[in-house]
Amino acid sequence: MKNIFVIGIGLIGGSLVKDIKKQDPSVTVYGIDKKDAVLSEALSLSLIDEKATLDDLENADLVIVSIPVDATEKLLPVILNKVNDNALVVDVGSTKLDICKAVENHEKRRNYLAMHPIAGTEFSGPSAAINDLFVGKTNIICEVEKTAFKLQEKALELFRNIGMRMCYMNPEAHDKHIAYVSHLSHISSFMLGKTVIEKEKNERDIFDMAGSGFASTVRLAKSSPAMWTPIFKQNKANVIETLEEYIANLTQFKELMKQDNFEAIYNEMENTNYIKDILKGIN
Amino acid sequence: MKNIFVIGIGLIGGSLVKDIKKQDPSVTVYGIDKKDAVLSEALSLSLIDEKATLDDLENADLVIVSIPVDATEKLLPVILNKVNDNALVVDVGSTKLDICKAVENHEKRRNYLAMHPIAGTEFSGPSAAINDLFVGKTNIICEVEKTAFKLQEKALELFRNIGMRMCYMNPEAHDKHIAYVSHLSHISSFMLGKTVIEKEKNERDIFDMAGSGFASTVRLAKSSPAMWTPIFKQNKANVIETLEEYIANLTQFKELMKQDNFEAIYNEMENTNYIKDILKGIN
Repeated sequence: MKNIFVIGIGLIGGSLVKDIKKQDPSVTVYGIDKKDAVLSEALSLSLIDEKATLDDLENADLVIVSIPVDATEKLLPVILNKVNDNALVVDVGSTKLDICKAVENHEKRRNYLAMHPIAGTEFSGPSAAINDLFVGKTNIICEVEKTAFKLQEKALELFRNIGMRMCYMNPEAHDKHIAYVSHLSHISSFMLGKTVIEKEKNERDIFDMAGSGFASTVRLAKSSPAMWTPIFKQNKANVIETLEEYIANLTQFKELMKQDNFEAIYNEMENTNYIKDILKGIN
Repeated sequence: MKNIFVIGIGLIGGSLVKDIKKQDPSVTVYGIDKKDAVLSEALSLSLIDEKATLDDLENADLVIVSIPVDATEKLLPVILNKVNDNALVVDVGSTKLDICKAVENHEKRRNYLAMHPIAGTEFSGPSAAINDLFVGKTNIICEVEKTAFKLQEKALELFRNIGMRMCYMNPEAHDKHIAYVSHLSHISSFMLGKTVIEKEKNERDIFDMAGSGFASTVRLAKSSPAMWTPIFKQNKANVIETLEEYIANLTQFKELMKQDNFEAIYNEMENTNYIKDILKGIN
């Protein structure tokens, strides 16, 4: 693997090429981004070795597509048109069904591996790229059987070398479950932030009362709207289902409080304390 | 200040006496707890020097009341009955109105200082006590004018020495604002945990898909129901108000999704990104 192209050089794409280059300093990393300023920043941060365009993709051994999921859906067929027969193309999007559908009948479908590394921070852009982001993290791979065998092997070796655990799942299951364990958390956090900001807009110093608990629950409200809007759009049905269940649980909690049923409130919390065991092992 | 009594030796009480003892190793720390096992654990962790009972309080120079807020409401008048005229009694509860009311006409009201250190973790019990928990944290003090002047001075010096910033507020304002920046976060976190656990109870390995974002938003769902139930009970009206606003915001977000109004979804998130500036400075 000599020529690696990364399309969209932010937190995930940037961190991936940082780790890959650390494993094998002989690779050349080419960056493609619709904003030249992002490419220049990535170059100055040494995330990429050279600026490139889609027309250079014929030289790629590996293409990492790390752009918003709606852009991936549109661009992935174009990328597959341009790569050579031995190239591996991966995307890192937080939805998998629509993206897999966009290339299901593409003649180069076997050059593509659908994946979702469960890693990140609330930051974005080239400066958010960090080393070792993927150590011990889960990489969900969808429809692995549709990828050429030698390219599967290549991908597994590469991502295992930077510390990831592989996990296989079909795109429908991925999108349904990730709505619960990731997409819903983002909405709960954004709306919590909104609720508090609205209330306290005239009393700025109230935020001096906020502690680490508040900071933790609203951390994801710092996330990029440009990245998250297309995710919610592509995973609309699943996300709405999680929101309905979450709202129903909050409403029930509120009703128990109104009824002064604090024994039930206690039990609700005690039953959920079990999350401690579940969270063990998540970094 | 020679004899310090701590009633309830968990995360906050334990961490306070750890820091106070570090500042002045000559003090003797006496522990009072309804569970003897907690006292023994606190003793073995060197959080306290001796076990004690309420009848020993006449020797106290400082009493720290760090027990659930309903227990504080009941016990605080009894404690004030027992202390000597020069003793300072503080509580650390997450509600202030009902607790202040419980002693408003007590003949030793001037020996009491109502406070709420905004510090903590999701853990509880003596083993959760840590050093330097309060460095740079806000300590909200209510009705300071009702505390004897020399005891105010004593308290301010003590808590400033362990790193806290003081902030003054009336109990009504404290309870209203803390419902937004603390109590609501706990409920959002507990209900998020519940929603995901319910959905995924038959698919345990789904939690392998959960990343650091999920862990951050549900962290507070590890909190102690014994501590939090009385807080929600005492602050019922304010907490219900925050829940209604939070549910309304979530419902509106869901409706925008149903209407495919993703431009509005984008704007909702972008407007809330402003939380970044607010969170700067919260540890």
